[in-house]
This record gives sequence, structure tokens and C-alpha cells, in this order.
Amino acid sequence: MTGTASASFTADDYEARMERAARQAAEAGLAGLLVAPGPDLVWLTGYTPTAVTERLTLLVLAAGRDPVLVVPTLEAPDAEHAPGAPALTLRDWTDGKDPYAATAALLDPDGRFGISDNAWAMHLLGLQNALPGTSYASLTEALPMLRAVKDAAELELLAAAGAAADAAFEEIRGVAFAGRRETDVAADLAALLRRFGHSQVDFTIVASGPNGANPHHEIGDRVIERGDMVVLDFGGLKDGYGSDTSRTVHVGEPTDEERRVHDLVREAQEAGFRAVRPGAACQDVDRAARAVIAGAGYGEYFIHRTGHGIGVTTHEPPYMIEGEQRPLVPGMCFSVEPGVYLPGRFGVRIEDIVTVTEDGGRRLNNTAREMVIVD
Amino acid sequence: MTGTASASFTADDYEARMERAARQAAEAGLAGLLVAPGPDLVWLTGYTPTAVTERLTLLVLAAGRDPVLVVPTLEAPDAEHAPGAPALTLRDWTDGKDPYAATAALLDPDGRFGISDNAWAMHLLGLQNALPGTSYASLTEALPMLRAVKDAAELELLAAAGAAADAAFEEIRGVAFAGRRETDVAADLAALLRRFGHSQVDFTIVASGPNGANPHHEIGDRVIERGDMVVLDFGGLKDGYGSDTSRTVHVGEPTDEERRVHDLVREAQEAGFRAVRPGAACQDVDRAARAVIAGAGYGEYFIHRTGHGIGVTTHEPPYMIEGEQRPLVPGMCFSVEPGVYLPGRFGVRIEDIVTVTEDGGRRLNNTAREMVIVD
Repeated sequence: MTGTASASFTADDYEARMERAARQAAEAGLAGLLVAPGPDLVWLTGYTPTAVTERLTLLVLAAGRDPVLVVPTLEAPDAEHAPGAPALTLRDWTDGKDPYAATAALLDPDGRFGISDNAWAMHLLGLQNALPGTSYASLTEALPMLRAVKDAAELELLAAAGAAADAAFEEIRGVAFAGRRETDVAADLAALLRRFGHSQVDFTIVASGPNGANPHHEIGDRVIERGDMVVLDFGGLKDGYGSDTSRTVHVGEPTDEERRVHDLVREAQEAGFRAVRPGAACQDVDRAARAVIAGAGYGEYFIHRTGHGIGVTTHEPPYMIEGEQRPLVPGMCFSVEPGVYLPGRFGVRIEDIVTVTEDGGRRLNNTAREMVIVD
Repeated sequence: MTGTASASFTADDYEARMERAARQAAEAGLAGLLVAPGPDLVWLTGYTPTAVTERLTLLVLAAGRDPVLVVPTLEAPDAEHAPGAPALTLRDWTDGKDPYAATAALLDPDGRFGISDNAWAMHLLGLQNALPGTSYASLTEALPMLRAVKDAAELELLAAAGAAADAAFEEIRGVAFAGRRETDVAADLAALLRRFGHSQVDFTIVASGPNGANPHHEIGDRVIERGDMVVLDFGGLKDGYGSDTSRTVHVGEPTDEERRVHDLVREAQEAGFRAVRPGAACQDVDRAARAVIAGAGYGEYFIHRTGHGIGVTTHEPPYMIEGEQRPLVPGMCFSVEPGVYLPGRFGVRIEDIVTVTEDGGRRLNNTAREMVIVD
């Protein structure tokens, strides 16, 4: 889940992000944000500790003071080299000292704070014990859209990650499918993602035949056969930003029904994409894609939301789901990935990453959405 | 940090561990234990989710009821196949439902609970909101010795992991050091650990010349030179259990001082090892090793504790450190790893994993502790 620092950003960029986060926190009525190692910390400072251990590392963004990174003394030399370090004060603590007392000294003792979802419970307990008057909300609950709007440099990195995933798809079209296991094709996909610049492969779903009807099937030992539909869904991180794309291919000639369902999902994906524009609600994208599938009588077989955001992780807000009424804003990036899953038979999913532009949307995946026939 | 399930244990083994944990929790005045994915969950159930996400997975060991694993519906099929599953009741929850309410229904609303150190803060907040009368302690604080005493099968796996690390050392002795980067030798070490059966490599420290004087230097681009001391410290997981050993080698002939310091550290390591016996305090091991180094006038250059436990992780209680007065018990496993670090010049560390036997200690690493000369 955690991204790695990208060389594309300067201390000024990280400073601007920290200011934006502190401002949003204040607007949400929070006394500050407490950010643990993980995607939020990477995004705000470019810093990822070599290993996440029981030793407390925590970025404190509190109203009215400069950002402070609380860090174990042993790890301070590494943290000093983080790209965002010039915009930070480092407060190091040595083994045997109380890191919670050191952190508490930076905080409003009666404040409410946002804390990273994935901060360790032992650290939250340490802070609660040190400052019994404080209260906490998870950062994603408090500021779900903190990282949602990407700047130009981030969009460039996401586009490059998308292009690399597309290059992997162009190559995987040419490999043998029939007679090989799903795990074999998945290994090919992982190697291709790495060859095209990914430093981290998050998932390589190869769901053949009836396995394709389970959207959460990843890979297995099933041998792919001639006549199978095969859902491919793969992505990871390249230069610290994510890719995630799905195409559904067919081994040999499809039946009429398979072709019809694939065309339907392609049409739904196109409708979801066309619903993307500034000011539309997230749920509008879901509704547009779902209406196409429901209109053809397959509504009950589209059993997941239409999309999720992407950035320094491959899975984050905003979510394209019924009930999500927040508006789309230029710079947001997310998947549009409707699917139809026919139990025991086959599934189809088509997914592109899309970014919101001033007047609509732009796809960051651009391989053929027509059904590709493989061997 | 997280181990993987080992094929060596049965549902009965996991059931016995859960019973032991529940009993220790009750003795510590806790109403139960809440165990998140990670080493504790692996040890108690053999279960590791494919990915740790924002979806709650939590083992509930509460007084007076059978163990329950709260698990997302999507992941229930995987959880059902965990080796400890026959001793568990699965309680699955679907997206959109409140997993905290489902968990709260299993808990004493006024109880105090131990919760995994690395449980996500957002999950702890969810439980605190659902049951405002509950209180929590981190599991390591509440039951530090829960996993410390290993049974016979665990000792066998730790011995096998140690033997594999030793085999890697025997091979690395033969590779070229002079003229290659630390990162190159580290890559060799990682490949050797995997070749000898490790599924996970946690660290491959190669600290040459002056880098050796920083015990937390891992690896860098420094080119190793003739005349360098090189600290090697490497380990990971094999069949779900950890290895961790250090040897300090010399590229070509050492100086008299280098030989003297190496001999001193070897003598300290031997003294630490000889202090291991049932009933001795953890701190006695530290004191024994430290006395040797301090007696030779190098006390200020031994700047870390003498050891840490090992099991399904490579770093856990018990700690061999001044102030740790808990007694050694047969079956405990930990490192004995004194070192001397001369700033700007070189460092020496020698480390074996040692297990406590009925009448002393037994080393699980057995390569030469005399200084090895490499090319």
C-alpha cells in the first residue's frame, strides 16, 4: 500500500502539501493531524522509514506551529535526507525515553486530532494516556479528500504509470494462454510491469472461465482452456504513483453471448467515462455505468462499485459509489471499472484510470477496449 | 515482520496457544485479547490475510467464550482454510455493515482488553466509539512474554532457520569483497538466504570500514576495500520462523588492534552465552557481555543492548537489556550480540541465536566466531 518517495517533488512541493493539510484540518475543526508512516506521510514529506517498527515516527501538523517530525534518534539521519525534510523540524527521541510525552508537548491538551488510519494502536494508546483530554478521528474519515486532487507533476507520474501498464498489456496479448495456469500468466504480468518501470506490483489478477465470475478471485492453479474468457486486472507503483487497469480477453473465438456481454461492459465503461466532468457527483459516474448494464437486464450481475481513487496508493478516495455526493474536481484520478459476473460461467471487467479535466475526463489507459482474442 | 503460517502445526496446537493466551490475559486482569493481522495472529491461528487493508480482521479471545475471528465476508473463504480455523468461530461482515458493532457484541462493555500493538488506530477508534466503557492496553505491554517460550516444534524450526543462515555465511565467505559495493554483497546474502530456504529476507546488513562503526548502517554504495573490517548481519523467515546472525570478517590481513577488538567482542559474546541458564535474569546476559567489554576499556563503544527475542518475527521480547529482570525460562530464544563501534574507523559485532535449555543455553548458530579473512 505504501508508496515510495518520488524524485519529482521538491521541499517546496511538500511544504505546500503540509500547508494544505493543516488548513483543511483547521477547517474541519481539528487541532491538528498526526501522520504515521504510510501513504499520507509519503505524500506529505516524501519520507518512508526503512522499516515500520514499534518505535514511534509521527508527523505533527498542528495549528499555529511549523511541522514537526517526531523520529527515533537511530532513524534521524535517514529522515534528514527525506525530500520534505527542509520544510520540517525533526524532534528525535532516544531508546528509553518516552516518545508520547515528547509528542504531547507539541499538542493542544484538549484538542481533537486526525490520526492516520494505519497508525499503530499502541501509539494511539500512548497519546491517549499522555493527554487524556484529547480526542481522535481517523484521517480518512476526517479528511477523505486530502490527497484526492493531483497537481500537474502527480498527473504526469500517474499517466506514466498508466502507460507502463498499457505496455504490459500489449505484451501479454502475445503470450500463450491456453494450457497454462493462471499463476503462470500472472507471473508474466508481474515481470512485464517491472520491466516497464514498476518498482512494486500490487496485484495481477488472472481470472479465467468460471473464476472470472468472482471479482475477488486473484489467481489460482486453474489451467486456462481454449474458449475461456479471462479477466486481467493488474497494477502497482512506478516512481511512487499507481497504475490499475483491467481488460478481458478471450482464448480463441467467443460465443455470441460472450461477445454481447463484453460489448455491454464496454458501453457501460464508456458511459461512466462520459459522466466524468467537474461538478458531477462521484455517484453520477457509478449511476451512468450501472444504468447501461441494468438497462440490458444484467443489473444484478454488476456487484461492486464503479471505481476508486488512485495516487501514492492503488486504492484510496474518492469512491465512485451510490451515495457519494462529493463533486468531481479537476485533478482527481480514479478508476472506472464496471463489470458483469455470471456465476459459474464467466466475467467481464474493463477498467481505465480517468482524471478529471476542466471540461470532462481524460483516460490514462488507452489500450483497445474491444475484445482481444488471445491464444 | 509478519510471519507466514507454518505447515508444522495443527489445529490442536493453535487451540492450545489460544487457550494459553486467554488464560494469561485473565491472569493479567484483562477481559480479553483483540488480535490484528500480524505476528500474534499468525502465532495464534496460522492465518495471514493476503493484504492488510482498512477492512477489519480481528481475533477476539474473551473470557468465557470460544475464540471468534471477525473477518470481511470477501476474505472468509481464505480464513476458513487457515490451519487454526477448526478451533475458531468465523463471524463475517459485509461491506457497508459496521464491523465495530459486530465486534462489540462479543465484548464486556466495561472490560479492559489487550490489543495488538500494530492494530490500526482507525479500528481502535471504532471499538472505543462502539463501547465507550472499555479500556485498552497494547498486547506487548500487557503480555510481553506471550510468545517468548517456544515449544519443541518451534525450536526445531528456529534451529533450521539458524542452520540455513549459517549455510549462507559459509558461502558468503567465498565471494569477492574487495572492489565490490556493499549493496552487491548484500544482494548475494539475500540470494543465499533464499537459496537455503528463506521465504522472506528481513535484513542483510553489510557495513564496511567506517560504516561498521554505525550499528544501524544497513547497506550503501560504498566500495569495499582491502583492509576493511566488514560487519555482516542478516536474517529473515524460513518456514515461518526467524534467523538472525552476525559475523565480522576482514578483507585481507587485519591490524593488531583490529584483531584485539575482534577477540574482545568474541570473548564478550562467549560470556553472554555462558550467562544463559534458567532463572537468570535477562539483564544478567547483558551484564555478562558488557562487563568483558567495559573491563577492557571499550565500554563506551558498546552502544546497544545485548539481545532480543526471535520467533515468528526476527525482533520481539524478551530483551537482554539492563533493567529487564524477568527470568530466563527453558524454550526462550534470543540473540546474544555484543559489539564495539569505533567512530570513523570500524565496528565489530558477533551474534548467535541462543535458546535456554534445562541446564544452560544452546546456540542455534554455529559458524566460526574467530575472525574470518575474505578476499
